[in-house]
Amino acid sequence: MRRSITGFSNPTVKLLRSLRDKKHRKREGLFLAEGLRLLTDAREAGRLPQMLVMAEKRERHDLLDALEADVIDAGGEVIETSRDILAKITGKDNPQAVAGAFAEWDTSLDTIDRSNSDIWLVAQALRDPGNMGTMLRTCDAVGAGGLILIDDCTDPFSVEAVRASMGAVFTQAIARATWDEFVPWLRSGAGQLVAASLRDSEPYRGAPYSAPCFILVGNESQGLPEAYEAECDLRVTMPMRGKADSLNAAVAGAVLAYEVLAGLEG
Amino acid sequence: MRRSITGFSNPTVKLLRSLRDKKHRKREGLFLAEGLRLLTDAREAGRLPQMLVMAEKRERHDLLDALEADVIDAGGEVIETSRDILAKITGKDNPQAVAGAFAEWDTSLDTIDRSNSDIWLVAQALRDPGNMGTMLRTCDAVGAGGLILIDDCTDPFSVEAVRASMGAVFTQAIARATWDEFVPWLRSGAGQLVAASLRDSEPYRGAPYSAPCFILVGNESQGLPEAYEAECDLRVTMPMRGKADSLNAAVAGAVLAYEVLAGLEG
Repeated sequence: MRRSITGFSNPTVKLLRSLRDKKHRKREGLFLAEGLRLLTDAREAGRLPQMLVMAEKRERHDLLDALEADVIDAGGEVIETSRDILAKITGKDNPQAVAGAFAEWDTSLDTIDRSNSDIWLVAQALRDPGNMGTMLRTCDAVGAGGLILIDDCTDPFSVEAVRASMGAVFTQAIARATWDEFVPWLRSGAGQLVAASLRDSEPYRGAPYSAPCFILVGNESQGLPEAYEAECDLRVTMPMRGKADSLNAAVAGAVLAYEVLAGLEG
Repeated sequence: MRRSITGFSNPTVKLLRSLRDKKHRKREGLFLAEGLRLLTDAREAGRLPQMLVMAEKRERHDLLDALEADVIDAGGEVIETSRDILAKITGKDNPQAVAGAFAEWDTSLDTIDRSNSDIWLVAQALRDPGNMGTMLRTCDAVGAGGLILIDDCTDPFSVEAVRASMGAVFTQAIARATWDEFVPWLRSGAGQLVAASLRDSEPYRGAPYSAPCFILVGNESQGLPEAYEAECDLRVTMPMRGKADSLNAAVAGAVLAYEVLAGLEG
């Protein structure tokens, strides 16, 4: 279906802009992604927006035409509106010419097929949306299967996390679970749980990583609870040559993921 | 000097809160850092705030007492005020009990002594304050000498960058220069310029890194200009197993920095 929206108080505009808040995303089961590049990544990963919102005045683009056709074919809505209304929806002064509202998908642990990849990232109580998106992006780069979110993490479907993921939110498997759900799931199959740790650990470089390797990264300010570290099959230490004893969580995950990648391939 | 401030419209309150804006930081030559941990990191690195602002109602802490005494000894000001005014200054609903206004220091290239470290990070047109702070934090972790900022980078003294640096803004050398200033400076002494690149490059793992190694990271969305890559002594490629062809800038810098660290030590 196609339609045009001209009024700021239109209910669809209100719904779309409400998706910047987690509680509204949860209620509607929808999230926003902005920009032709992200939407094309989504399309290539087999995800189409339920609603595609486009600026009336925009440059023509083959990829946008293709996206539009696919959304219509799939029974979605294509909405044309003004730049001002797009700015209101996205909360940006200079919005991109296109945005999409996607249905959130099932993120239960059952959706994860560990045989899909040798590397998985696992984040515990990750609070920063930028770190969330960056970890998804790192998953993509190292060829990981996806990101498993443990305990109370920031929403992977927030506008900031989606943007920072550079499209990886659409290509990576994402699961959400409590620790008490995750551990039995992990132990029900093959899998090595690895964390960076200062306790009872060995050098991260050349450590005996094995596939499928689950790389566990802790909360930005607290790190991992001791019991979680104790559950790990392998604890490794990265050199810390300075005053501090830790790295940014997304950085630590990435340095470790690249080492695991080299270890498994080498 | 000690004094107490009770009014929101006090000129010192106005000055301090103005430091959240870059143009005011530049005009005043001051920047803000919040929290006892950051301020203690600064003190240990030999940096004391010109003004130390403390909540009237706060828990006593030895480190805060020591900081207070040092600020007074150094001729600085210690200001007591309400939590509400601290919230106004820092722009946070739940401000930390202490904040400091520090004099910005000289960030010209002449302040860099390359013999201080085997590793240096160089960021070109880095725009995100979180990435800036994260790169400073990574510098600390790998024992780098500091961060050299090329062309139009985000301000390393912004509240966000200072916070993300976890204190490394005080321990790491920071220089700002144009590319045309940087290259002659680099070539006036020993130094290998290395960048991640897809062109004419070799695998990053085990590449022939040599000290002092300057690791160049490009802008978040554009990457490095081709001419900048061409100037590099070594171009290396990190595996990209997914759909995307790049990592977050701070992540790429960190993965490379840890590889360089291993290479130089191995």
